[in-house]
Parts: sequence; structure tokens; C-alpha cells
Amino acid sequence: LSEVPPDDRITRSWLENAGAWTRAVRGRAMESRRVATDQAILDAVLACGGERVLDVGCGEGWLSRRLDQAGRDVVGFDGSPALIEEARGGGGGVRFIALDYDAFASDPGAVGVDYDVAVCNFSLLGEHVGGLLAGLRCVTRPGGHLLVQTVHPFFLAGTARYEDGWQEENYESLPGEWSPMPWYFRTFGSWVRELGLAGWRLDACREPLHPATGQPVSLILVAL
Amino acid sequence: LSEVPPDDRITRSWLENAGAWTRAVRGRAMESRRVATDQAILDAVLACGGERVLDVGCGEGWLSRRLDQAGRDVVGFDGSPALIEEARGGGGGVRFIALDYDAFASDPGAVGVDYDVAVCNFSLLGEHVGGLLAGLRCVTRPGGHLLVQTVHPFFLAGTARYEDGWQEENYESLPGEWSPMPWYFRTFGSWVRELGLAGWRLDACREPLHPATGQPVSLILVAL
Repeated sequence: LSEVPPDDRITRSWLENAGAWTRAVRGRAMESRRVATDQAILDAVLACGGERVLDVGCGEGWLSRRLDQAGRDVVGFDGSPALIEEARGGGGGVRFIALDYDAFASDPGAVGVDYDVAVCNFSLLGEHVGGLLAGLRCVTRPGGHLLVQTVHPFFLAGTARYEDGWQEENYESLPGEWSPMPWYFRTFGSWVRELGLAGWRLDACREPLHPATGQPVSLILVAL
Repeated sequence: LSEVPPDDRITRSWLENAGAWTRAVRGRAMESRRVATDQAILDAVLACGGERVLDVGCGEGWLSRRLDQAGRDVVGFDGSPALIEEARGGGGGVRFIALDYDAFASDPGAVGVDYDVAVCNFSLLGEHVGGLLAGLRCVTRPGGHLLVQTVHPFFLAGTARYEDGWQEENYESLPGEWSPMPWYFRTFGSWVRELGLAGWRLDACREPLHPATGQPVSLILVAL
């Protein structure tokens, strides 16, 4: 398995884990999402204003549906056809598209153009995100926003060398059978660099806190 | 003492600690500076290019002198006349000016204009830095850089609520007699906000690591 490139393992995991993931999200099984990060990304998108939202790596579609209910015009796309099938079965007026990030980067307009907001909610998992971020610049209107919610850099505080690198998610805290998924950790500096290289500039950061511990549970990058 | 506003306590500490501070810096007594942060800020300034550098809160002047030796045209200013006296006694071709941050914010041109780089090396210590940062925007040329080296957000990882607030420096690891100094901790998001409000945009972050632990010893914000 270790000879399979990490990006291919990510793709495969989202096919194999589609059912367990859908049950975990819809059952609100993940504490950090329940107590902080779901509301934080919703608030951040709605604070941007504008009507048209692109949900990048939408998974089973919960965020798209919530934004649809809040009156936004939403398109969601994801590289896992199995998750898009779950999303389409979830109801609401959202258009869901099965499209992987490489295909999007080659032809961004395939998901439509002139978005007010593009949002990546824990969906930038690979090492090479430049093509995707540049594609999102093409399909958002001038002055449009990019929001990226991701793992907070505190993840590596006090534990290991603080630098970009591959990590592994084993879903140990969740019920069901799971395939482990590699994901690529980035430092603050690395996120700022990736955004800048793709033509975005960081306008703000939100760092939602766990209500009990007071420690950040995620980082939300707001770019223009 | 606690009824004295923190900003006034900061000002007072840099008068009372001027001698001990000068000995500590010139004796290279602070490990984090010796192993990482001194070289990191030098490298960051020199990477910007340009000739004219403003050293903001220059203290006893070590950074100004090093940049002068590297061929830069340097002006340093500091709110502590006692430290400026030490700086002037340190040799080199740097012009050192005794000027506090409020006076600078009221009349930024008092230190000259058209700087290529303004650098604040662990010298933004108060809660209200907006006037200073806006003043620096006025005295740097279009396309000029602002560099801020400060405490890394990891300072509050795992220990306390992660939010802006006053901390106290007691200089416990250093020899000599010291007056404690309040200083204001900022989250990553707070720094991005302060820069934006003052007309700067974050272009990059450097996060120098301790060579032994691999953990960040500071955050360097690079703004345009």
C-alpha cells in the first residue's frame, strides 16, 4: 500500500469510506464539528455576502444544504462519485457535480463561473493544491472570497518538528470500518505561500476555539 | 503598580532595564536569539532588497549595526532615551533617534520617509499598535516591506485560552536586576487583522525553528 502515491490513497479512501463518512457527518459524530467548526464555517461563508457559493470537496453535502437553506445559490463538487451520490440523495436544491481536483484544475469553468464565495471545508488534503487554488481564482468574481477551513497549526505544537508533511487519519474515534487516509499538514507560513502563489491574498484568519479547552479546533483562512 | 496603565509600565521598564538589557543583548545571553531569531530577522530584512531600512524600537541597536555592516542605510528609533544612548555608544554609521511610538504616530516623517523596509524586531509590545503600523505605511515607499518578528502563537498552545491578552515578562532566565514588563499576546488572526486595518497586507510568514526541538521560536510577518 505504501507504494501507492498519497494522492491516490486519498482518492481511494473517499470511495471506500463514503458510507461510513456519510453516517458520521449526518449523525454528528465528530465532536469538533459539533461544538465549533460546522458553525464557524457557516458563519464565515454567510459573513462574505453574495449569493453564489461553490462548495469545493463538498462530500455528502451538509454544508451545501445548509447554505441552500440560508438562501444561497450553491454548487457542490467532489472527486468521489460515491459521496456525490450520497449528496444527491440528501435533498434540497443544490446542484452536485462529480469532478476530481485535477479535472477541475484543467477546466475550472466546468462548475460554472462568477462565484461570490468558494469554500473548502477540510477538503484540501493533498500536497499539491496550487492548481485547484488557481482554478478557484478563475471561477470567483473580482472581489470574491475564498474560505479554507483546515487543521490548526497547533496540531504540531509540542509534539514533533513543526513543518509541512504527510500525516495519517485513522478515524479511531468514529464507529464503523474505515480505510486510513493520508493528509498533508501545512504550517501558517505554508498556507500563506500557497494562497499567494495562486493569486489570492490572505485577508483574515478565524481560529474557532473549543468551548471547554479554549484551544483552537481549526484555522479558517479568508482570502481575496 | 497594577494601577499604572500597561503601556506606561512598558515605557518605564525600558528605562529601568536599559543597562541590563544592553548587557544581555551584547553578551548574547538569550538562547532563542542566539540560535535562531537574530539570524532569521537579518535574513528576512536582507531578502527584501532595497537600501533604506527603518529599525523600529531599535533598543541598544544591534540589528541596526548589523544591517549597516551589510551595506544598508539604516535609521533606528526607540522610545527609551536610555537605550538610544546605549545605541549611539555602539559605533557604526547608524542614525539613532529617541522617539516614542505615540510621537511617531503623530508625525511619522520625523524619522524620514521613502524607506524600503521597516522592521519591528520583538518591539511591538502594546495592545494598541494601529497608529504605529499606519505611520510605518506612510514612511515606506510603495512596494516597501514591513517585517514584524514576534512571539509565535504556539506560546499559548496547550496552556491557556488562546486569545489576545496581557502577559508578563520577568526576565527570569537572565542575570541582573530587572523590572517586569507587560506585553500583549496576539493570535495569528489578530496580527492579520492589525496589519490589514493599517493598510498592510500579509505577503508571507517565516516561522524559525529551534534547531534542537524543531518547534517555532518566533513568527516573522512579512507585509506589503
